[in-house]
Amino acid sequence: MSMDYQNRLNQLRKGFKDNHFSLALISNPSNVFYYTGFNSDPHERFMALAWNGKTDEFTLFVPALDLEIANDASIVKTIIPVADDEDPFQVLQGEMGDGITAIGLEMKEVSMYRHQQLQTVFPDASYTDIQSEINKQRLKKSRSEIEYLQEAVDIIEKVLEEGTKKVKAGMTEAELAAELEYLMKKFGAVGPSFSTIVLSGEKAALPHGVPNDRKLQTGDFLLIDFGVKTKNGYCSDITRTFVIGEASEKQKEIYNFVLESNQAGIRAVKAGSPLKSFDLAARNVIENSGYGEYFNNRVGHGLGIDVHEEPSVHSNNEQSAEKGLFFTIEPGIYIPQFGGVRIEDEVYINEDGEAEVLTTFPRELQVL
Amino acid sequence: MSMDYQNRLNQLRKGFKDNHFSLALISNPSNVFYYTGFNSDPHERFMALAWNGKTDEFTLFVPALDLEIANDASIVKTIIPVADDEDPFQVLQGEMGDGITAIGLEMKEVSMYRHQQLQTVFPDASYTDIQSEINKQRLKKSRSEIEYLQEAVDIIEKVLEEGTKKVKAGMTEAELAAELEYLMKKFGAVGPSFSTIVLSGEKAALPHGVPNDRKLQTGDFLLIDFGVKTKNGYCSDITRTFVIGEASEKQKEIYNFVLESNQAGIRAVKAGSPLKSFDLAARNVIENSGYGEYFNNRVGHGLGIDVHEEPSVHSNNEQSAEKGLFFTIEPGIYIPQFGGVRIEDEVYINEDGEAEVLTTFPRELQVL
Repeated sequence: MSMDYQNRLNQLRKGFKDNHFSLALISNPSNVFYYTGFNSDPHERFMALAWNGKTDEFTLFVPALDLEIANDASIVKTIIPVADDEDPFQVLQGEMGDGITAIGLEMKEVSMYRHQQLQTVFPDASYTDIQSEINKQRLKKSRSEIEYLQEAVDIIEKVLEEGTKKVKAGMTEAELAAELEYLMKKFGAVGPSFSTIVLSGEKAALPHGVPNDRKLQTGDFLLIDFGVKTKNGYCSDITRTFVIGEASEKQKEIYNFVLESNQAGIRAVKAGSPLKSFDLAARNVIENSGYGEYFNNRVGHGLGIDVHEEPSVHSNNEQSAEKGLFFTIEPGIYIPQFGGVRIEDEVYINEDGEAEVLTTFPRELQVL
Repeated sequence: MSMDYQNRLNQLRKGFKDNHFSLALISNPSNVFYYTGFNSDPHERFMALAWNGKTDEFTLFVPALDLEIANDASIVKTIIPVADDEDPFQVLQGEMGDGITAIGLEMKEVSMYRHQQLQTVFPDASYTDIQSEINKQRLKKSRSEIEYLQEAVDIIEKVLEEGTKKVKAGMTEAELAAELEYLMKKFGAVGPSFSTIVLSGEKAALPHGVPNDRKLQTGDFLLIDFGVKTKNGYCSDITRTFVIGEASEKQKEIYNFVLESNQAGIRAVKAGSPLKSFDLAARNVIENSGYGEYFNNRVGHGLGIDVHEEPSVHSNNEQSAEKGLFFTIEPGIYIPQFGGVRIEDEVYINEDGEAEVLTTFPRELQVL
């Protein structure tokens, strides 16, 4: 399986030319990975994929320590190492030369400090944001990317299957979260794609709750929302909600409304419909159930190299859904002081414009 | 145990007044935690501790979802929640009013995008970096902070003790890393303070190596460099190097030079000496051993709320060491294609200006 980096770079180059940039800099590590295959977090050091408007060439600047790995991984083979005692902006200026008047960069990624450094070496430049150009590409997943995303789903579903076998009343949320993250690595993931959410009882209603010393009790809802990042650099994100011991009638009722909502959301997915229609399809079920006030977030978000990417699937997004989009459908009902249910799946709009659901873990209420 | 937030805020306020700021904004999450006690990562949302030059008051802006937790945790009690559908910069402008001409902020933290948003609502403002003012305070650890840091050390040493019992030839680096991170959570940590480094055999020489499927073998060096972040928000960072099965004469020789270097570095630590002298004391031992070319990084770094903070303990740092500094001493010898040894401890310059070593795990060569 190979990513079509050259095609991605060519599209990028075209956008840069259309914008008449003299220089473009990509410094978000996920974006650098997307265009080069080199996946690295430089922390405070300087890393950037630079496009030179005069030569129409790409150059990858990496911390000197990462040169060997970058050489192996990057499709862009002109690589300039920057040593810790060098000024990366001087190095950049030396490579790019004079006459830089228009620079494209990711405005949310570049700090005021780096902006000042750039102004020092390119005093005549204006700056334009390129994030939306990049997002337009990253938004549409290729079949190769879906294979990597499926791998991330397969691992997390295996973790969920093994992990739920260990659930018993009396263990704490934090213990279960630790167990799940251990299994992620055991099953070959690099680690969690975000901090694992294990919430029980009334805590399952908290939007930003964190696993703590609360002990799982008979009759609790148990909400598990988690994902992995794989060695291939892609993320998964799935939620299932269980009940410990025995489910009450009210728990079953809430659960089934959420399940119906999840299914309605997924059924609505197809190319050509506005993204909001997927949210509304799921939302209508919960509104009609009488629990509408307890579902107060968007129904889904895109994911890929990052666990949150475009598109945002919310009730005001008029944007038309295109082939290649990949996102979650995750309705929920969250009742303060009582508990909550969320059922989250991952959906791809495939080459035929149809919904392809990557997650397969059973959705029916399971009592653990 | 309580942190002296009020004192910290007063020092900050004084600096802001001296700089004649009309507004100061602290948005780095570690800095917000340091000054308020509210420890939260807002991801892409807006969070800032704002100081108003006109009223001399602090206000904390938080994502609306975090309001309840912020109310509980923050010493600053004027808290403004920002909902997802609000423009945080309009909200900020509404609270701060007109006539904002000089803004202090962390230039490495604030993106060009946020800078533009600030320019829109405060069109007449100039900007000054405040990170060094903040660093000056964070640099000096109080006794209360040392108690929290000791807690982080105690947990990681317990993990090291339990974890090394599980080491056996044939297990992979990645399996051991997963086991260690599981134990961190089991022993009460929030998680690792950085991605756990487990490197074996010749890989122990790699500065940026990551644990992978390499199996531990008899005769390997096994380098473990890791730490935890505690619920109280403080980090630890320790390295020990072991040998699997039986140590060769060359391994023992290298190990003992690094141990001697580590001890010389620690012995050099006291208030009033230049920071470089700690590096040089450790470096001289390795240079005299003939392995000088294989020790090519600084001897240590500060840590606290972040795992890398000031001071930087390197051979060119003329800065005088003051009471309250807390940093690692971590010399090493890294021989490509052969392997490497690092021994890393954590040292505090206490109220008497003396070195207090928080790490206690045995430093003598252990064969596992």
